[in-house]
Amino acid sequence: MSRQRWERFQKYLCAPQGLDVRVDPSRMAIDDAFLERMTPALERAFDAMEALEGGAIANPDEGRMVGHYWLRDAARAPTPELRAAIDETLDRVRELAAGVRSGAVRPQSAGRFENALIVGIGGSALGPQFVSDALGRRPGGENPGGERPLRIFFLDNTDPDGFDRIFAEIDASPGGFAGTVTVVISKSGGTPETRNGMLEAANAYESRGLRFAPHAIAVTMEGSALDGIAVEQEWLARFPMWDWVGGRTSELSAVGLLPAALEGIDIDAMLEGARAMDVATRVRDPIANPAAVLALSWHLAGDGRGEKDMVILPYKDRLLLLSRYLQQLVMESLGKETDRRGELAEQGIVVYGNKGSTDQHAYIQQLRDGPENFFVTFIEVLEDRRGESIEVEPGVTAGDYLIGLHLGTRDALSEKGRGSVTITIPRVDATAVGKLIALFERAVGLYAELIDINAYHQPGVEAGKRAARGVLDLQGRVLADVEAHRGELRTAGEIAASIGDADEAETVFHLLEHRAANPGALVREAGESAVNARFGLR
Amino acid sequence: MSRQRWERFQKYLCAPQGLDVRVDPSRMAIDDAFLERMTPALERAFDAMEALEGGAIANPDEGRMVGHYWLRDAARAPTPELRAAIDETLDRVRELAAGVRSGAVRPQSAGRFENALIVGIGGSALGPQFVSDALGRRPGGENPGGERPLRIFFLDNTDPDGFDRIFAEIDASPGGFAGTVTVVISKSGGTPETRNGMLEAANAYESRGLRFAPHAIAVTMEGSALDGIAVEQEWLARFPMWDWVGGRTSELSAVGLLPAALEGIDIDAMLEGARAMDVATRVRDPIANPAAVLALSWHLAGDGRGEKDMVILPYKDRLLLLSRYLQQLVMESLGKETDRRGELAEQGIVVYGNKGSTDQHAYIQQLRDGPENFFVTFIEVLEDRRGESIEVEPGVTAGDYLIGLHLGTRDALSEKGRGSVTITIPRVDATAVGKLIALFERAVGLYAELIDINAYHQPGVEAGKRAARGVLDLQGRVLADVEAHRGELRTAGEIAASIGDADEAETVFHLLEHRAANPGALVREAGESAVNARFGLR
Repeated sequence: MSRQRWERFQKYLCAPQGLDVRVDPSRMAIDDAFLERMTPALERAFDAMEALEGGAIANPDEGRMVGHYWLRDAARAPTPELRAAIDETLDRVRELAAGVRSGAVRPQSAGRFENALIVGIGGSALGPQFVSDALGRRPGGENPGGERPLRIFFLDNTDPDGFDRIFAEIDASPGGFAGTVTVVISKSGGTPETRNGMLEAANAYESRGLRFAPHAIAVTMEGSALDGIAVEQEWLARFPMWDWVGGRTSELSAVGLLPAALEGIDIDAMLEGARAMDVATRVRDPIANPAAVLALSWHLAGDGRGEKDMVILPYKDRLLLLSRYLQQLVMESLGKETDRRGELAEQGIVVYGNKGSTDQHAYIQQLRDGPENFFVTFIEVLEDRRGESIEVEPGVTAGDYLIGLHLGTRDALSEKGRGSVTITIPRVDATAVGKLIALFERAVGLYAELIDINAYHQPGVEAGKRAARGVLDLQGRVLADVEAHRGELRTAGEIAASIGDADEAETVFHLLEHRAANPGALVREAGESAVNARFGLR
Repeated sequence: MSRQRWERFQKYLCAPQGLDVRVDPSRMAIDDAFLERMTPALERAFDAMEALEGGAIANPDEGRMVGHYWLRDAARAPTPELRAAIDETLDRVRELAAGVRSGAVRPQSAGRFENALIVGIGGSALGPQFVSDALGRRPGGENPGGERPLRIFFLDNTDPDGFDRIFAEIDASPGGFAGTVTVVISKSGGTPETRNGMLEAANAYESRGLRFAPHAIAVTMEGSALDGIAVEQEWLARFPMWDWVGGRTSELSAVGLLPAALEGIDIDAMLEGARAMDVATRVRDPIANPAAVLALSWHLAGDGRGEKDMVILPYKDRLLLLSRYLQQLVMESLGKETDRRGELAEQGIVVYGNKGSTDQHAYIQQLRDGPENFFVTFIEVLEDRRGESIEVEPGVTAGDYLIGLHLGTRDALSEKGRGSVTITIPRVDATAVGKLIALFERAVGLYAELIDINAYHQPGVEAGKRAARGVLDLQGRVLADVEAHRGELRTAGEIAASIGDADEAETVFHLLEHRAANPGALVREAGESAVNARFGLR
């Protein structure tokens, strides 16, 4: 068994020369027959990716090109206008971030910007959060030349208490709000959570006697509602998003690069890493192309129908948020109801995981002994730390344990027939992070071609948004009716009937309970059971 | 459809009087026939939980009682000795934490303790991390009476770079290491990650000219290796763990209470909440008992075989880490190879999720349109924030959006036949957190009885640990052989053969790559392919 493992490892290890990223699928049930069977589909997938990179309308449902690969290699963009837009934006990101970090771009009242508050959600937060946690500011760090990386905060929801927590942290930080630049990121410019975060942030500045506009930067499509506000209020700066970059593949656009650059992260190394991975993943060879190896492994694991969950297990604290980033990249791209021919497909792959060896103490028990409904993607990082390590027992360091626990766990899973892929990188630096992003972007693109779905739209997200709008409209009618019946205490059922929406009584109940639990005039009187509580205005 | 929803909501809502926690299973396919069918099994489950709470050997594989319910109601413990141990430990936790917070218990050299560094993993970290994030320190907060909550840090892995990140944060914090108390938590006292964290932390103190022992507290079983060190080195304090409390149900023992109390969290309110939930979940009525409602919903969703993943989606930033806490509680408890009769069962339920509405922008696309391989547990929090909210549009607050997005998403999933349970709490405070912990603890206990497995052992975790030990032993032999062949550069395959472990060449390769990437004398020379790299000492 072990002998066979070594042979399989030598045979299937994907380690392109000079790439410094290896992908090892040998612990999956991959074999030559499978590779041969998949070759025609993979060839079609390579063709499709080539067309996509050439500027085809690869997202036909939205009539859009899919151009995130051009962001790190503008020469590949299909028109001179696009090339210029990419280059110019990148220059402006570098320039503004350097100005902010050096103190040349100053806030209204404080000495310099010390903090960056990023307001965004989904693709406008998960990438920046992953990169910040992986590469961000070492406390107390100041670069040579007096450049000072900013401390970074995120508003990634519409939770009022969540806003207050971050605002309190900013107040307690050196610089406070006066030394904070706020970057509002919304491709469409109309995402409600981000709009709410922007309004709450603006209110926070103003309630501290500061103007918001001189502290605010917008990253959005030209002409969006957000862009209009930024123009009208004369914000500090505006950066474009383009309709050919999807939110979940926007980390290497201004969306991800501006926050990273403000934090002093080497964005050129990130771009260079992604570019190198793009080169390696254009190779038309199933086992020499790391993205193809991943996509084929996913197909093998779940029989092309997502039957196995993808457990992401990096053995490194700095990669903790990779799984959250990949949840969006993989699940929003692949989770589709129909294939491209319009046939019912119900595709998707579940992604979860945090970090090793920590998660060994959480759910490896189930992975080893429970249902075989997953495969693991291990990420191995060779460098332990900057500098020397103490010995925790003779000849053994804490980093030896980390590797030992990873290899031991992998063996313990293999023994039970649980498959795994291992990705190895030398260290967590900007280059490697750029490579990981590009690797998974293309693996998702290739896998989508293998199962013939559009990876670049998200029709199911809209349904929830429309439903939420409906709920807020219902709330408006409920509150108007309560106002019109001032002095009466009525049940949710009675109020729903009163507005002619008796069928919506359950939602009305939730809305009234929520309003009554918060400041305002709505009164709640307990009933003999929870659903009989009565609400009204005195 | 909507009318029917209201009727089902009224019929199945579990809202025990005075409990302030509601569980609504009406969006699952629950019905009277199912409840009737499950009644005999549920009766047996209630009997088993009663026996467990009475002190039965409920974990027969390890010959142990299962007593976490006694931690919040010592009067229920089966012997006077246990009652006294629980009460006395709780008093000592309260007393020490108050002393540290008030400055009466002082560090060696600094004015007072400002920080607490918690070293633990799995059950010794996930609960404390969840509680700290949910209830912890507001920046800049100081309580009346001059008590100051400590800032809290965690070492929850054996990642050297991860250690260095936290050490740098402590150095940059007010108080630094001199003002930091370190709590080392390991039930067995032998968990390698925790031991490594302790040694690295001790080294960090000492390399800053401080003694570790006067800053160190142990939480462990009496007589463990860790306990021995704490006694010998005269640590600041020691608190007991007991063999009748499992790691994943230890949050309301000293493991969770001491870190929480140091952070100024109201641990008595947590205990009171758990006690109230225990009372409500002893009720022998399937739909009046919130834990039974959850356990039955899980059984219904996955047909008692874990066929559906459990997506945990709290619409509140402070509950972000609930899913990580539940990954251990649920997956380590339920992920079992055999049932109690020894029959192959491969049980378990996958848990994942982060928070709403943020996750709507990550994977709701897949939940709505992709494979129906999950059910959602929504957690609704009625209180938006402390204080008033601004309007983000006329008559609408950011908190209205949060509720609207939750209700809208739930509807969008219901429309597609995707089931969900909704748990409602009034606010995220210590009482509610205590209730949530006790609710899920008992739901896991009841579900384990329904499917007849031992929820209180973790045999699969041991396999990984043994395998890791084997890997470290292999590393020792590899490094000794490399030393003995000083001056030779050899491939992993050659070195593996040289130590008589040719079958382990793949593991040897990983070990050599890791060692060569870190400080030390091992030299690596690239080969014509990755696996042919050569290693040795010059």
